[in-house]
Amino acid sequence: MSIRVGIVGISGFGGGEAMRLIAGHPAFELVYAAGEGSAGSRLVDRFPGVPQKLAGLVIEKWDPAALPQLDLLFASLPTGTSAEALARVPDEVKIVDIGGDHRYADGWVYGLADVWPARIAGRSRVANPGCFPVATLNTLAPLLVNRLIEPGNIVIDAKTGISGAGRGGADARFGYADTNENLQPYGLLKHVHMPEMARTIEGLSAGSAAGLVFTPHLVPMTRGVLVTLYCRGRATTQECLDAARSFYADRAFVRVTDRPPQTKWATGSNLSFVSYAADPERNLVIAMGVVDNLGKGAAGQAVQNANLMSGLPETAGLDGAPLWP
Amino acid sequence: MSIRVGIVGISGFGGGEAMRLIAGHPAFELVYAAGEGSAGSRLVDRFPGVPQKLAGLVIEKWDPAALPQLDLLFASLPTGTSAEALARVPDEVKIVDIGGDHRYADGWVYGLADVWPARIAGRSRVANPGCFPVATLNTLAPLLVNRLIEPGNIVIDAKTGISGAGRGGADARFGYADTNENLQPYGLLKHVHMPEMARTIEGLSAGSAAGLVFTPHLVPMTRGVLVTLYCRGRATTQECLDAARSFYADRAFVRVTDRPPQTKWATGSNLSFVSYAADPERNLVIAMGVVDNLGKGAAGQAVQNANLMSGLPETAGLDGAPLWP
Amino acid sequence: MSIRVGIVGISGFGGGEAMRLIAGHPAFELVYAAGEGSAGSRLVDRFPGVPQKLAGLVIEKWDPAALPQLDLLFASLPTGTSAEALARVPDEVKIVDIGGDHRYADGWVYGLADVWPARIAGRSRVANPGCFPVATLNTLAPLLVNRLIEPGNIVIDAKTGISGAGRGGADARFGYADTNENLQPYGLLKHVHMPEMARTIEGLSAGSAAGLVFTPHLVPMTRGVLVTLYCRGRATTQECLDAARSFYADRAFVRVTDRPPQTKWATGSNLSFVSYAADPERNLVIAMGVVDNLGKGAAGQAVQNANLMSGLPETAGLDGAPLWP
Amino acid sequence: MSIRVGIVGISGFGGGEAMRLIAGHPAFELVYAAGEGSAGSRLVDRFPGVPQKLAGLVIEKWDPAALPQLDLLFASLPTGTSAEALARVPDEVKIVDIGGDHRYADGWVYGLADVWPARIAGRSRVANPGCFPVATLNTLAPLLVNRLIEPGNIVIDAKTGISGAGRGGADARFGYADTNENLQPYGLLKHVHMPEMARTIEGLSAGSAAGLVFTPHLVPMTRGVLVTLYCRGRATTQECLDAARSFYADRAFVRVTDRPPQTKWATGSNLSFVSYAADPERNLVIAMGVVDNLGKGAAGQAVQNANLMSGLPETAGLDGAPLWP
Repeated sequence: MSIRVGIVGISGFGGGEAMRLIAGHPAFELVYAAGEGSAGSRLVDRFPGVPQKLAGLVIEKWDPAALPQLDLLFASLPTGTSAEALARVPDEVKIVDIGGDHRYADGWVYGLADVWPARIAGRSRVANPGCFPVATLNTLAPLLVNRLIEPGNIVIDAKTGISGAGRGGADARFGYADTNENLQPYGLLKHVHMPEMARTIEGLSAGSAAGLVFTPHLVPMTRGVLVTLYCRGRATTQECLDAARSFYADRAFVRVTDRPPQTKWATGSNLSFVSYAADPERNLVIAMGVVDNLGKGAAGQAVQNANLMSGLPETAGLDGAPLWP
Repeated sequence: MSIRVGIVGISGFGGGEAMRLIAGHPAFELVYAAGEGSAGSRLVDRFPGVPQKLAGLVIEKWDPAALPQLDLLFASLPTGTSAEALARVPDEVKIVDIGGDHRYADGWVYGLADVWPARIAGRSRVANPGCFPVATLNTLAPLLVNRLIEPGNIVIDAKTGISGAGRGGADARFGYADTNENLQPYGLLKHVHMPEMARTIEGLSAGSAAGLVFTPHLVPMTRGVLVTLYCRGRATTQECLDAARSFYADRAFVRVTDRPPQTKWATGSNLSFVSYAADPERNLVIAMGVVDNLGKGAAGQAVQNANLMSGLPETAGLDGAPLWP
Repeated sequence: MSIRVGIVGISGFGGGEAMRLIAGHPAFELVYAAGEGSAGSRLVDRFPGVPQKLAGLVIEKWDPAALPQLDLLFASLPTGTSAEALARVPDEVKIVDIGGDHRYADGWVYGLADVWPARIAGRSRVANPGCFPVATLNTLAPLLVNRLIEPGNIVIDAKTGISGAGRGGADARFGYADTNENLQPYGLLKHVHMPEMARTIEGLSAGSAAGLVFTPHLVPMTRGVLVTLYCRGRATTQECLDAARSFYADRAFVRVTDRPPQTKWATGSNLSFVSYAADPERNLVIAMGVVDNLGKGAAGQAVQNANLMSGLPETAGLDGAPLWP
Repeated sequence: MSIRVGIVGISGFGGGEAMRLIAGHPAFELVYAAGEGSAGSRLVDRFPGVPQKLAGLVIEKWDPAALPQLDLLFASLPTGTSAEALARVPDEVKIVDIGGDHRYADGWVYGLADVWPARIAGRSRVANPGCFPVATLNTLAPLLVNRLIEPGNIVIDAKTGISGAGRGGADARFGYADTNENLQPYGLLKHVHMPEMARTIEGLSAGSAAGLVFTPHLVPMTRGVLVTLYCRGRATTQECLDAARSFYADRAFVRVTDRPPQTKWATGSNLSFVSYAADPERNLVIAMGVVDNLGKGAAGQAVQNANLMSGLPETAGLDGAPLWP
């Protein structure tokens, strides 16, 4: 059975990663790709290593009125542009929006696949969580659901590789010489990812996420997100680990580890690693999570959601081991 | 059909990459792993992201007298140790030696898979080429066979990421602070890879490889090999490109490009990119080739050879697209 | 006037950076260097770019009974070894211990030079703060002294380049291939830097540092420390910036910026950058500080302290601009 | 004595490095800075770590008719623009052009300072060599002058960090995610640096540089140039090393080493390292040279030339040790 898939936003990192995963997917067939900067060129001109079967696919200029027959569309567009771009896509085409515009929007389910796959199964419109949110929420979910931490006053100190910030392709803000060997905070006090995190924390805990703090940082590496979360709670380290192992017992992509996670463990995969270190006497639970920002943080989870939406095994096309070293 | 596969040298980068590829292979089943530094631990302790099905496999201490039933064994051992280590492996177990000890040794075929797959098909003992040699020989083969360049006086200026030098795991010579942001030549005038390159050049050209020069350099990145080859010849750029396209027309893993190749095009894959820029007036052909040193340069080609040895489709388990960015 | 200076621990990164700064110092003359791994070799063998005047200095094996005549000694030794190593240094030789063993020890002043230079002036035994502490304390001092934040429950999320962790030279834990393109937390819940930070916070605030949390992370770059501090307080951003500008008005090395600091701003220098972003409604002050871990975080501040101890202008030998890019 | 100095092109990497060196120079005083993208801002806005004395200097829009009184001007402008930009600078203002437009132009001396300082002393118009040329020519000069190699058919395989390619500041071609962990050749067969290298080789050897080949490569690091030169000659390694040691015996910035040079040895300095490995039987001399592309490759040599032009000690402001690690 072949599911006809398209990608709009093929020029960006999220679109390119989606292409790579779809190329190796047993059921998805990429039949359409659209991109702003590369319209008219073939996929192989943009991705010299693209599998032969896809090499000649021509990148189109996005026109929802001129789509070929598609079963499913992945959208990886700049923030603020996908609502309009996707408005006229026919209802029968399922959509996964990797960008942020439809998160918690009416008619769209928030695709936190490792936590509530049942909400996504068979659905038609899924908004993929952002990379920082999925790392954070995957890590917090077991603690919130089990009331091991308070939902309020969580401090999220987040770190991302450069492909997780800015737009795909050449971004003048991230010239190599300025970005290499450099670390900096950005987006202080108000970041576009906060609403979806706050809302999900409240949904999972039936409590208030007031006092949520989130500080992202740019790290000189290509891929990888690590979130270090400072939470209030009297749980022990073991209680947290046990709760997470139980919570994710039958979820294929979340790994609970005793030792602090490293971003490299997830690189090139759809895995999510979580760990905890608690000090009950200080009412402190430190929770840590890593993902590959293009994997679980974008295209990986998008494909996982697409599998759920299509009634396929959740791990289809996503069981590749991470790249090491 | 499941082919029972083992890896000795699982702790090194080559062994780890072999494990990743085998985990995603449709016919190979990893049933045995041995490693010096990790004996007694489970695969998941060494590789936190290893697929679940392999997570509990215990790493053994190498003992050829105590092997489980195996069809095929990958060896990725330190230089100078595999002859002894493999001497007592039963004849019925096919072996691919990723290390250098058996290249052009009696009873072993040199596994230059993209160039002479027929020599490897069905064989039992295959010596995998080194990373610099495969990048170099894949690039030169069309030119040598078609007499577009002289086989003599070829200058190979080679560059490798750090996982291509030294031994797997922590290598005191490559401490991060000394290696990062640094570039250096090494192994001048005589490098362990030269004999196999000279011999193959002579075999392909039926001429003499006298005057071969090879200078490797360490580059501050994890993966990637690029070779820049300065050859004598009166061919034009187009003649070289045409010859290569024809030579590799039905080979799945070699891509011929008009523009100079970048190492990143191959990262995480078994691809090999080649290109040429010639100046007939100066009797000069510059040939360029890139591979991922752990992909085509080690485990990728090892799996490709194993496929050929086992009568499987050559691309089995190796059609993953490169990682980008 | 020439002050005769020695370095013990020349093989490590701190010792090497001290050598570089002393070589360019108008009053210090390096007449003695001792190192574990390099004893017997000349400085130029260890540091090929060392200035000619120092090239032939032979690295000695440390023997406090056989020191030449010295006015001042810099010690950059592995944790736990300097108490014994320095015990028999003659009283008349001033010592700056770059390592941690003498911080807040009897007879030693804690060398937080940008905050309390008067305590250091003319002193004989100075314990140089750790890199995370100086970045943290320089950032917090104006807020604590001016009571703009509570001294308790400060959360320090710290990030360091690899030369700030482990020991100097080749460290098997930081092999390039494992460390590159990777980010990880370490030293959770109890880190050797916490006591000096807690004590200083209490000293500056006359309050309690209870609830101090500190989580360091390894970042794939050579130099640079950034600390992101989450504090409780009702101050506004402007009040924090104004307090810091006033506090450091006549201090040469601390720069207060409106925008978040980048580690690269400090690379190769003795500068310390601080900034603040507050949300009074949430009782939250985010304070940020960067240093070069080998500059202000080690050798730079050590030389600054040595200047104060010797009655020299504080900026002697330390006015080099940072390296950019 | 204070020499009034200006920089036009302050926004680029060469201009920024010149600023850093001038700030620490005992005789030069920066009184004027002009830059395309930063006109109107202060130096400290562009360089947060700039020494206090220069912090408030406002960056002007370049207007040769409105210059303040200057003794010397450094120009670091995009290729093709400096001839026009500098045409109307008053004759009495000495100029060092860091860019390429005036190399070997009438009225300008080619500023190869380590090789022919006497040609530069007291001069008024000096064209600074390119980074690849200076690394190459410094390495070849002793061999050419002493006839240890043939001047013809030299193959230059060059490698540069990213700040050595493209224009200063944000360059869309070098977005971090595309450039990191990647290595590629560029500028094949004809590169803008070839004419100055060919001409100088011929001048030094009184022979023909026919057959010169030059292939640059982009390396994922910020600073550093390494050239690996393949030359014809029957000299031995020792003869080459001796010739170079003799040739540079009284030159402060060139270091001759027995072992292959590493780019990091030069980082942040005006040093040039050269080494040789020869195989007389094969009529082969491999010569290797490293510089910091912004140091000796641009601003460092520019300041060195300015010292010579101004009758100052050649090492003034340039004796800083390299940064390590």
